[in-house]
Amino acid sequence: MTTTSLATGQRSLGDPDISYPLWPPLTRGCPRTSSDTMSYPLEIDYDYARVTSDFITGQGRPRSGLDRWAPLLPPLAAPGLGEGGTPLIAIGDGVYVKDESRNPTWSHKDRLNRCTVSAAVAIGAPGVVVASSGNHGASAAAYAARAGLRCVVLGSPELPPAVASFLSAYGAVVLPVETAHRWPLTERIAEEFGFHPVSNLTPFHTGHAFGPEGYKTVAYEIAADIVDPGAVFVPTGYGELLFGIAKGFTELHRLGLVSRVPRLFSCEPAVGGPLASALRQGLPATEVAVGDTEAYGIACPVNSYRGVRAITVSEGRALTVDDAAMHRAQAELAGQGLWVELSAAAGLAGLRTLPDDETIEGPVVCVTTSSGFKDTRVGDHHLAPVDPSWENVRARLRAEGIRS
Amino acid sequence: MTTTSLATGQRSLGDPDISYPLWPPLTRGCPRTSSDTMSYPLEIDYDYARVTSDFITGQGRPRSGLDRWAPLLPPLAAPGLGEGGTPLIAIGDGVYVKDESRNPTWSHKDRLNRCTVSAAVAIGAPGVVVASSGNHGASAAAYAARAGLRCVVLGSPELPPAVASFLSAYGAVVLPVETAHRWPLTERIAEEFGFHPVSNLTPFHTGHAFGPEGYKTVAYEIAADIVDPGAVFVPTGYGELLFGIAKGFTELHRLGLVSRVPRLFSCEPAVGGPLASALRQGLPATEVAVGDTEAYGIACPVNSYRGVRAITVSEGRALTVDDAAMHRAQAELAGQGLWVELSAAAGLAGLRTLPDDETIEGPVVCVTTSSGFKDTRVGDHHLAPVDPSWENVRARLRAEGIRS
Repeated sequence: MTTTSLATGQRSLGDPDISYPLWPPLTRGCPRTSSDTMSYPLEIDYDYARVTSDFITGQGRPRSGLDRWAPLLPPLAAPGLGEGGTPLIAIGDGVYVKDESRNPTWSHKDRLNRCTVSAAVAIGAPGVVVASSGNHGASAAAYAARAGLRCVVLGSPELPPAVASFLSAYGAVVLPVETAHRWPLTERIAEEFGFHPVSNLTPFHTGHAFGPEGYKTVAYEIAADIVDPGAVFVPTGYGELLFGIAKGFTELHRLGLVSRVPRLFSCEPAVGGPLASALRQGLPATEVAVGDTEAYGIACPVNSYRGVRAITVSEGRALTVDDAAMHRAQAELAGQGLWVELSAAAGLAGLRTLPDDETIEGPVVCVTTSSGFKDTRVGDHHLAPVDPSWENVRARLRAEGIRS
Repeated sequence: MTTTSLATGQRSLGDPDISYPLWPPLTRGCPRTSSDTMSYPLEIDYDYARVTSDFITGQGRPRSGLDRWAPLLPPLAAPGLGEGGTPLIAIGDGVYVKDESRNPTWSHKDRLNRCTVSAAVAIGAPGVVVASSGNHGASAAAYAARAGLRCVVLGSPELPPAVASFLSAYGAVVLPVETAHRWPLTERIAEEFGFHPVSNLTPFHTGHAFGPEGYKTVAYEIAADIVDPGAVFVPTGYGELLFGIAKGFTELHRLGLVSRVPRLFSCEPAVGGPLASALRQGLPATEVAVGDTEAYGIACPVNSYRGVRAITVSEGRALTVDDAAMHRAQAELAGQGLWVELSAAAGLAGLRTLPDDETIEGPVVCVTTSSGFKDTRVGDHHLAPVDPSWENVRARLRAEGIRS
């Protein structure tokens, strides 16, 4: 048993025979296989031979935070906030919800940013820069603050008010700019101020090489909690979470610690769906027009090759879900005591609108990525005071179907 | 080792020789010791002789949710949401933060409502009714939904907009009424519709007999994570959380599982402070005028006798903290990557403004009760788009003290 990282280097997803040293972390995809028309991400490779057979139970390792899984993560140089370790909640008929709103900044992004900010700390960067309109930006700001680094968040000009408060809460410099300016400014801030970029910088999404490794821990935790899930349904924007979960299970299978890799179902908004489009066309990545959706957290015009890999390796399937299906899933989750933002309901929406030709064997996990406080409609809600006379209150309750 | 409740009955805090059967749960304090001028709460008693020596490590019991601690809780008849198990985060100099925003509805109230809604389920009530302007109401709504019960929330007319969305998210009937009407309406709804009341119904606070038992699990978890804390600082409204933590440690000490009971420090807003006032005057409870404070979650005009008991039994101390001290503590926590609502920063504010005559031996835990999304200022935040030219962005960053 080891509590230190077994990471050995960065491997290209464009060509698995191409590897780079672990340092410096590559933040613009694989330099050798990428071109102006296609960007290939990187993943981290490990000395798997040194992983011990007690990896999943992890006796002796910390039980809280990503530190529990340190051997199969990049070096965790940044201090943690007890991220991960989120509960799996049974909602009936063999369906479980992995509630990622239980992270330090109430979304899955904390698993990623523990890893990306660790990279910034390890290379001695004075700060991090992130282009994000929500969870990713706030999470990066929190981990940067915790590590004593500065943070610049390039947000969108149309932030829900509660999200604006959230992004600003951790002392980051938050600059709302139009989308077209966000990536060039990220580059420039990285170049001129030496800030480490923790969001994407390439035409098709590649992001930070270390980031999706953090998401593998979702798979490790599921494997620790239930035996052999049949499928995992994942709200999918750029597909980093999707890829991390697929990679985590693939590693456990390779190590002989689980008997199969569950099928991964990506769940993108129906108004876009670049991953579904890429898979349909047999391409590594595509760009699509994105129509109107309230699922702002996963409305992406391009996919990452990571998503293609996740669906292929797990023999999964790319689904798309419309806003109506996500609203129904959001309501179903609220009925179980779980309030999620609309994007976060995409996984359950995918399960509930599964095509008839699909059957799944074994328990099903739907990942909910984030809390309802981040919904676009939050802050619009005003409740008018009611007449407190008993006649009125009784009538109101009866109108709601409550009977004495 | 047992995974079932060892609860034996309800014991009066007004006179420990007075006990009642476990059923029905008493929701209006101790009938025999209470009078028109003083209300005494109840607590649950257990068959402590049957608690096994592995109680804290709990091998064999579930690791997630209050179920882990089932032997020393009332029967958990309502399904859980993986409440509790929140991380303890080191912020330096032997100080730890117990981050209760990591619960299912992002506050400590979930520990209480798992127990109160369990009582409603166990007695076959068709629903629950709760008077609350925030976390308590939303949490009760979530657990009621999960259990398939209806829920009526009597809120205040001045709900922050994000909190209005939160209260409404779980399908409860939310009726905002002036404070004076909330308790009479709670009584009436309980009487005429048979709904189980899960908030207070007495002049001095007593609340539900089962509720504070859920808070004991904060103490159990702290004891499982660190050895022998010297003190715990607790944001204090009616003192239910304070009492639960004190009781949890007292039980562990009685069972020989910890070597001492840490000192409990209650932290009330300086504009009110009924518990501090009661202790100063040697009274079981007092009523005070409450001035303006942004710490709406803990601004209470009366205390509960529970608070007096918690401070006395732990040889602790009642502190008051002003809004400026809470804002400083909130900023300190944000600098560690933790965004809390203002009330939730009261514990750290108490530690940071501790009177000079106090010294504490051993690790210190400050409980943060709830997420920053519930702050009154959330939703007011509007970020203006910035000019994206490099000259402007560079100037903005330099103005923020960022140097290339």
